[in-house]
Amino acid sequence: MSKPITVASAAAMLRQADRILILMHHYPDGDTIGSGYALCRALQAMGKLARTACSDEIPQKYGYMTAGVEQPNFEPNFVVAVDVADPQLLGNRLQPLADQVDLCIDHHGSNKEYARHLLLDADSAATAMLIAQVIDEMGVPLDRGMAECLYTGIATDTGCFKYANTDAAAHRAAARMIEKGARTEMINREMFDIKSRARVELERLALDSMEFHCRGRVAFMTITNHMAAVSGAVENDMEGLAPIPRQIEGVWVGVTLRQKADGSFKVSVRTGTHADASAICAKLGGGGHMRAAGCSPQGDEAAVTGQLLSVIRETVPHIDEAN
Amino acid sequence: MSKPITVASAAAMLRQADRILILMHHYPDGDTIGSGYALCRALQAMGKLARTACSDEIPQKYGYMTAGVEQPNFEPNFVVAVDVADPQLLGNRLQPLADQVDLCIDHHGSNKEYARHLLLDADSAATAMLIAQVIDEMGVPLDRGMAECLYTGIATDTGCFKYANTDAAAHRAAARMIEKGARTEMINREMFDIKSRARVELERLALDSMEFHCRGRVAFMTITNHMAAVSGAVENDMEGLAPIPRQIEGVWVGVTLRQKADGSFKVSVRTGTHADASAICAKLGGGGHMRAAGCSPQGDEAAVTGQLLSVIRETVPHIDEAN
Repeated sequence: MSKPITVASAAAMLRQADRILILMHHYPDGDTIGSGYALCRALQAMGKLARTACSDEIPQKYGYMTAGVEQPNFEPNFVVAVDVADPQLLGNRLQPLADQVDLCIDHHGSNKEYARHLLLDADSAATAMLIAQVIDEMGVPLDRGMAECLYTGIATDTGCFKYANTDAAAHRAAARMIEKGARTEMINREMFDIKSRARVELERLALDSMEFHCRGRVAFMTITNHMAAVSGAVENDMEGLAPIPRQIEGVWVGVTLRQKADGSFKVSVRTGTHADASAICAKLGGGGHMRAAGCSPQGDEAAVTGQLLSVIRETVPHIDEAN
Repeated sequence: MSKPITVASAAAMLRQADRILILMHHYPDGDTIGSGYALCRALQAMGKLARTACSDEIPQKYGYMTAGVEQPNFEPNFVVAVDVADPQLLGNRLQPLADQVDLCIDHHGSNKEYARHLLLDADSAATAMLIAQVIDEMGVPLDRGMAECLYTGIATDTGCFKYANTDAAAHRAAARMIEKGARTEMINREMFDIKSRARVELERLALDSMEFHCRGRVAFMTITNHMAAVSGAVENDMEGLAPIPRQIEGVWVGVTLRQKADGSFKVSVRTGTHADASAICAKLGGGGHMRAAGCSPQGDEAAVTGQLLSVIRETVPHIDEAN
């Protein structure tokens, strides 16, 4: 169990420390990197020794956040984890540090409370929203570098201000980061526009696989290992495919089947207001949220699709009825 | 020539009028509809007679803005055009009113100054930003309906806060609309997520047509009449295709060829910082902006592609060179 603390206490702890190691989660995304590097920049601006650590390499597209940040070598006297809800998410390389985390700053309601102290706000759109408050509380003026890191965390976790978690506070924070000089045009292009050629090819193949059932209310899309191989897609190219089927007009339940290395399928279910994704996935041994859930049923593509289709028919009222 | 006026003067004029006709541009988009309906709702809340007019029908997806707004019949004593930069954009049905516009509220620097008075701010991300100021100045408290109209104008003209025109003021206005109750999750889904099945099919065919030149720095995508026919796409489904080629990693110049009814091609060119789209299109009789321009060269697909490729090679430095 972690001790829950306030922004002011978190800032006080960091102010007292002078050799600070900042841990990010593996498969790092815009929020963990933005949070980690904004905090690192702020602590260094205070004259402290600080560096970041991640089990995986930071993808090149995030380079504007890491550029110019020194990574000095030192024996830390304070360890802080940002946006890491579960010690397992530290990944292999950082796993040994899992029980040495002094402070976790996070916005996931599912936080496993593995750190000694926890600054948690599940209503924050991004961990970067909390980091901005901590930096303010420490009295460090935001420079462009910090503002770009914080903007990135907020923008990526809200799908560029599109998702349901986008609140007034997220927009106000973004406004402030723009005023602090964040180059949002460049950031938005890097984060939301650019796709690799392999990704475009993979999307094309995935769209080819699209199948509709139940009067067009259910859409299935499949991404096989063969598609990944012929398109040349790597892990990074796989992100953000799951929402595609549900974006089609009239679709209540969008299902994406992604083949794993062993040939089995990982299933993502996305729903609108008409259907409960977690109820569907729970019947197949999975779980998640009302609008986004997952499961991994046994069998080949046809078997998995068949199981899902009958569970959807069982679970979602009126799915097969005429309007 | 229009007389340029301030927000306060525009509000004073509207306060004095009591039978107000609000004109929107044809092929109506989120900003003209959001601006028109927010203003209409505010004027009606003040007890005035007000109604909106558009040469085209309002597409169904914007229905949450028009719902519940009465459209009374009356002889107007004041005509205001919102987001209409050019009288031609009033469209056929409203053309007879082009020289009777008392006030135009707009954010296009290219405004043709056809109205008697003009409230223009070319630095505003959307006309809806100006309408919000006018409503505030008139002293009308924003309700959810107005907030949803204004949010829609701002969100659609900024590409959901992604485009270069997204400034701090746009984010702050969005924050305020959320606080006034705007259902942004629903709006964002309607505006930015949902695609028709025909559109998805058209995108798939368009991606199939993608060709790369100049070490992957030039990408061509073609949308033929045949593709439109087999996918079942209608005019609405064609929007927003032009940016796709330039979204691919490493592409400096993205070109979209769209076939017109007569078989000829309308060309859209999108560029990043390495190339000037307007310079490319100017050489083929077209024009536009640095990063987005268009032209309509003669010839079949191969001829058009050939002309563009040689103009691009002539115009863009280093496009064919090794890194």
